Amino acid sequence: MKISELSDRSGLTVQTIKFYLREGLMPKGAATGATRAEYGDGHLERLRLIRAMREVGDLPVFAIKRIIAAADEPEVGLHELLGTVQYALGPHVDAPADDPQWRAARADVDALIAELGWRVTADAPARDLLAQTFVALRKLGFPVVLTELRPYIEAAMSLGEHEAGGLSTDEPRTRAIHRTLVTTVLYEQVLLALHRLAREHESARRLG
Amino acid sequence: MKISELSDRSGLTVQTIKFYLREGLMPKGAATGATRAEYGDGHLERLRLIRAMREVGDLPVFAIKRIIAAADEPEVGLHELLGTVQYALGPHVDAPADDPQWRAARADVDALIAELGWRVTADAPARDLLAQTFVALRKLGFPVVLTELRPYIEAAMSLGEHEAGGLSTDEPRTRAIHRTLVTTVLYEQVLLALHRLAREHESARRLG
Repeated sequence: MKISELSDRSGLTVQTIKFYLREGLMPKGAATGATRAEYGDGHLERLRLIRAMREVGDLPVFAIKRIIAAADEPEVGLHELLGTVQYALGPHVDAPADDPQWRAARADVDALIAELGWRVTADAPARDLLAQTFVALRKLGFPVVLTELRPYIEAAMSLGEHEAGGLSTDEPRTRAIHRTLVTTVLYEQVLLALHRLAREHESARRLG
Repeated sequence: MKISELSDRSGLTVQTIKFYLREGLMPKGAATGATRAEYGDGHLERLRLIRAMREVGDLPVFAIKRIIAAADEPEVGLHELLGTVQYALGPHVDAPADDPQWRAARADVDALIAELGWRVTADAPARDLLAQTFVALRKLGFPVVLTELRPYIEAAMSLGEHEAGGLSTDEPRTRAIHRTLVTTVLYEQVLLALHRLAREHESARRLG
């Protein structure tokens, strides 16, 4: 297909597509003339993925570039590739490494993960996010104890298992990235919305 | 205590405390002179709650005013009071009521909640949040089906039950608001962080 059709079908302007080509986010089309090229379904799929990364994941171009480079490198395994996607999604906490309260919270997070036996890298952004929340809870006088955390840990584990059930090295890498993006961003939003609704229902049942 | 001590102990400036007094967010102190007043522990507790609503919940003053008014009105039951807090926290989705895709998604959400038998008001903000997510999933070609939603519904129900277990009409209303705020905002952040960590662990277990 021509670039104009690629634009129609991806919902991106020709200008945007040319920018992505210049940035190396997708391979050039097959030249059919001095200024014309032919594009295939692979290009369309790539553009839809880039669009989802921008619109759903709110990812900057440099992060998209890193993910695309990993996707195009067969040496990078699926676990590492999907980790690149998840880490790019953040949230990136500005860790106040000098603050003793923060350091204590981060040590608690690391101890908790070790106790759970979870295989998570030392620089997973979610460690800092959890530490930040521990600090906030303690400042408000809410102790962070395992009995309080337990139901959340169990919910997270059961969802993590469910989502990992869909992982397969047979799945095309572009599709796997797409699904990681959607599960991480959109299903977390589904979870939050359902959590709010379930809270209201339980409150109505007990007090209403 | 004097207003200067109230300022020290609440971590808010005297100027901010005077602003809250003018806005009617807390009762005036007992006058001990033309320009001096004496404040009690109730004032301090109120200021800590306002501070948490601003800092943790990111709530604007008009929303805080509505919550405080409900807290101070004994006719407002605890379920309604805590609902006021949760609804104020949003997130407030700008519902594109003319969009047929949005209308279909919102109808699906309403049908789902009815099927689950959840007692949730028709204007709960989480209904719109869920509908918005359904629209985004469909646009990306991910069908929204009950088998996919089921694990998230179960996680939400089990957390909702756990959190409601702490509800009691014996608890001071200020403390109940405080706890709702913390559970809604901070424990949702705990849940997200744990979800990311559990995903990474499960991915490592299966693919790493």
